[in-house]
Amino acid sequence: MTTSLLDLGREVLAAQNFSRLLGAQLEAYEPGRAELVLPVTDQLLQQNGFVHGGVLSYLADNALTYAGGSVLGPDVLTAEYKINYLRPAVGERLQAVATVAGSGRTQAVCRCDVLVEQAGERKLCATALGTIRKRG
Amino acid sequence: MTTSLLDLGREVLAAQNFSRLLGAQLEAYEPGRAELVLPVTDQLLQQNGFVHGGVLSYLADNALTYAGGSVLGPDVLTAEYKINYLRPAVGERLQAVATVAGSGRTQAVCRCDVLVEQAGERKLCATALGTIRKRG
Amino acid sequence: MTTSLLDLGREVLAAQNFSRLLGAQLEAYEPGRAELVLPVTDQLLQQNGFVHGGVLSYLADNALTYAGGSVLGPDVLTAEYKINYLRPAVGERLQAVATVAGSGRTQAVCRCDVLVEQAGERKLCATALGTIRKRG
Amino acid sequence: MTTSLLDLGREVLAAQNFSRLLGAQLEAYEPGRAELVLPVTDQLLQQNGFVHGGVLSYLADNALTYAGGSVLGPDVLTAEYKINYLRPAVGERLQAVATVAGSGRTQAVCRCDVLVEQAGERKLCATALGTIRKRG
Repeated sequence: MTTSLLDLGREVLAAQNFSRLLGAQLEAYEPGRAELVLPVTDQLLQQNGFVHGGVLSYLADNALTYAGGSVLGPDVLTAEYKINYLRPAVGERLQAVATVAGSGRTQAVCRCDVLVEQAGERKLCATALGTIRKRG
Repeated sequence: MTTSLLDLGREVLAAQNFSRLLGAQLEAYEPGRAELVLPVTDQLLQQNGFVHGGVLSYLADNALTYAGGSVLGPDVLTAEYKINYLRPAVGERLQAVATVAGSGRTQAVCRCDVLVEQAGERKLCATALGTIRKRG
Repeated sequence: MTTSLLDLGREVLAAQNFSRLLGAQLEAYEPGRAELVLPVTDQLLQQNGFVHGGVLSYLADNALTYAGGSVLGPDVLTAEYKINYLRPAVGERLQAVATVAGSGRTQAVCRCDVLVEQAGERKLCATALGTIRKRG
Repeated sequence: MTTSLLDLGREVLAAQNFSRLLGAQLEAYEPGRAELVLPVTDQLLQQNGFVHGGVLSYLADNALTYAGGSVLGPDVLTAEYKINYLRPAVGERLQAVATVAGSGRTQAVCRCDVLVEQAGERKLCATALGTIRKRG
């Protein structure tokens, strides 16, 4: 009996206190691609009623790490990333989709789009690019 | 009677639900420089017991915005930033110090170092560079 | 009689001394997308015989600016960008394809992939993400 | 008789065709710090008479690599970097100063400021942050 990549990924997420605090869920996970979702709650907002940029960053960072881990193995960390915010995030749910642009033996370069869903419509609110690295 | 920049900054931080959830405090704030601190609690950790990268990102993002706002005025947003993680963050307290590298009428380019304090010692655990923009 | 976007773009490129020095050509140009190519010559190499990273950066930077300019108008500049190098660039020709991820009235966030062609095969050797801004 | 770090660095630079084409010189080189300079010539300009962004990128990229190589050894490459342009570069000479923010066994995170000198005055025109990695 084998544990699927998705199951393994969900175990890791459940072991991240910060991810539980925010309420992130691993929606899909396969080699080269990870999808995290996060219901928007009041506690995630900033002073103008938008989702705080730090939340979008957290989600992008985590999705990038999952994408990298899907090709490098579970013991990885985010070495660095960059994020561009495209529009204020207003809506019910965030979705982060990360993919692997290229990878070697110890590193993977990954991209992530963060979308916000509002009334059934999804809009790109941030996009990120970063490096995931094997630990040790 | 005037309200100081630090007082204004603290009002904004108090109006950020997400910052209150995490427990960030504005320690110092003057034109061109902002300092945020964040006591490390269990809820901010990831699966290896380190502070989650998303927390470091949040803190850098917010400190960058404050630094930019100190020269552009309060109605600003983070357009983009990049962060490099230098070492796992283990300790009692995070400190993010952001400064303005250069600014124009509508934008400021800011840097931020994130340090972790452990047993009286401070170590650099992340460094960031980003653009803060006036809204509208 | 109208001048096409491609013709306008080629005029700008011809007015860039540095682009002429390197030999870049604008291969395609339409709203939201720009494609620059650059034949690899000995003068573009570094000490290991690979194309110098600075050449890939130049090409990504310029392609990002063209992509942004295609939706913002010709008077734009690159505010910032980030580039990840994926593999050493060895081959006969570089191709940079930039697209607009999102844009507003004064800014556009653009992505760029840089590919190297060798013996009829194309490989991704760098990927970039950046902000293009209207001047003034 | 030993060869100094500066001499070694200059040998590498002399072996970079692209650096010779542009005219870069290694002005100073010590553990943790590198300084490259580049006289501004007409061939480095873009259509508005400013130094082309690609030139600033090249210089930042190369200075970052030198800084990383000063602590990691000569066989390094730039994994990624981000650059923010602060003002148009107009002047006689560019100077890029790169320092190591933090380093491990295989990687170094480095910063670089690019200044332009005009009539005896130096102004910051770009700032960069990136990762240098040991090859192999």
